[in-house]
Amino acid sequence: MSKFVVIGERIHCISPAIREAMAKRDPAPILKRAKQQLQAGATYLDVNIGPAESDGEELMKWAVTTIQQAFDNVPLCLDTVNRKAIEAGISVYNRSKGKPIVNSADAGERIENIDLAAANDAITIALCQKHGIPADNDERMAYCQEMLERGMMLGMEPTDLWFDPLFLVIKGMQDKQLDCLEAIKMFTDMGLNTTGGLSNVSNGMPKDIRPIMDSAMVAMAMANGLSSAIANPCDLRLMETIKSCDVIRNNVLYADSYLSI
Amino acid sequence: MSKFVVIGERIHCISPAIREAMAKRDPAPILKRAKQQLQAGATYLDVNIGPAESDGEELMKWAVTTIQQAFDNVPLCLDTVNRKAIEAGISVYNRSKGKPIVNSADAGERIENIDLAAANDAITIALCQKHGIPADNDERMAYCQEMLERGMMLGMEPTDLWFDPLFLVIKGMQDKQLDCLEAIKMFTDMGLNTTGGLSNVSNGMPKDIRPIMDSAMVAMAMANGLSSAIANPCDLRLMETIKSCDVIRNNVLYADSYLSI
Repeated sequence: MSKFVVIGERIHCISPAIREAMAKRDPAPILKRAKQQLQAGATYLDVNIGPAESDGEELMKWAVTTIQQAFDNVPLCLDTVNRKAIEAGISVYNRSKGKPIVNSADAGERIENIDLAAANDAITIALCQKHGIPADNDERMAYCQEMLERGMMLGMEPTDLWFDPLFLVIKGMQDKQLDCLEAIKMFTDMGLNTTGGLSNVSNGMPKDIRPIMDSAMVAMAMANGLSSAIANPCDLRLMETIKSCDVIRNNVLYADSYLSI
Repeated sequence: MSKFVVIGERIHCISPAIREAMAKRDPAPILKRAKQQLQAGATYLDVNIGPAESDGEELMKWAVTTIQQAFDNVPLCLDTVNRKAIEAGISVYNRSKGKPIVNSADAGERIENIDLAAANDAITIALCQKHGIPADNDERMAYCQEMLERGMMLGMEPTDLWFDPLFLVIKGMQDKQLDCLEAIKMFTDMGLNTTGGLSNVSNGMPKDIRPIMDSAMVAMAMANGLSSAIANPCDLRLMETIKSCDVIRNNVLYADSYLSI
């Protein structure tokens, strides 16, 4: 196994500060969050520009260039339903530190994002869903197969599809959590990479509980092979847990200083 | 799956205060630690009297009676290499809140502790070792089979042998941690219960790191089915993690108050 990949989720237009910065093309608030996340241990940074229907292509190009120039070509995850904006972002993306990630394809309306990733030698997150939440792991695996075959037919490496089992909210779907963990194990046993929006599990929980629950979940998921997560690297407890699990998985050599690096 | 069982490890003669209390038959320091552990969420309490060669039988009887009378017959784990002391403890043990646990049998010199458990309708911890640390999981499983067969031949329920894979120290045996996790999965898949001395993994690490590493490990082990641990329930982070994993495993119904109960 290789070191766990944290995709920092905090450059997201849902945040008023980031939305405003994107609208005004003001680099400072975006670079500030990029820096915080990289210092906290993120490997990739997600850049969510929202649907950006009118100016998505120009906005994504600006964001990619701005962030990569400021942080030594940090690898990015391009996050929008606007396909042309993702293509535009890739056109200016410097891949010296890692391929771009397309966020995201699924087995339904967004399946053509696999074609986009294949055509651009990119990684894609592959959500195991078609029409809403999968009922069970038979459904997850069917979607996984569908997406995997499509990617491979187009010449992708299987490991460039990062399968997202869909982490589900505990408040409401508590009895589905073990399914999700089992799906991660099945993908891992197939030699595939996995990722997902981890903090979904603690959605709606009190603020002080969320880092505790997210940390428990990431460790359980890492025991089953989870290779990446879209998460908040500024959550100290979460990062401590991920680093510790990486030591236990023997991905990172233990040293008394392992939490500080 | 049922709720995770924490066996509180803090009534141990390695502690000078407990050793002195045991020597003087002074209940106060022992009951204080019992109370702390129960309030923190322990289900069982381990009572380690050391080898107690001269007065083990009388000492264990005193300890069992003293603790059970003070805490509503709290279930106990009788921990000593002195077999007669364990038998003596069981002779006065009140099992209304749970069977006594014999700590511990192994596949080597201590195999007769299985006979002791069988003869007394007790649970026994079954260490998967014979001559020191097992080389790999083939060896662990061979010992597991040996102990399981012996117990079943004597009429024990398979679930009354709690298999201990031997948690190993990361500083020195970092590359063996996944073996240990895999062993837990194999025992669980056989329908067996598991336990172990969890904090072994962080032995020798800086004091502030140990709860972080132990918490990561317990979550990974619980993902693989671990059903119990001999641990320090006063380690808040560890207990928060165990309670969260129990919610994720759907053993305990989620409520916003789940960490407080």
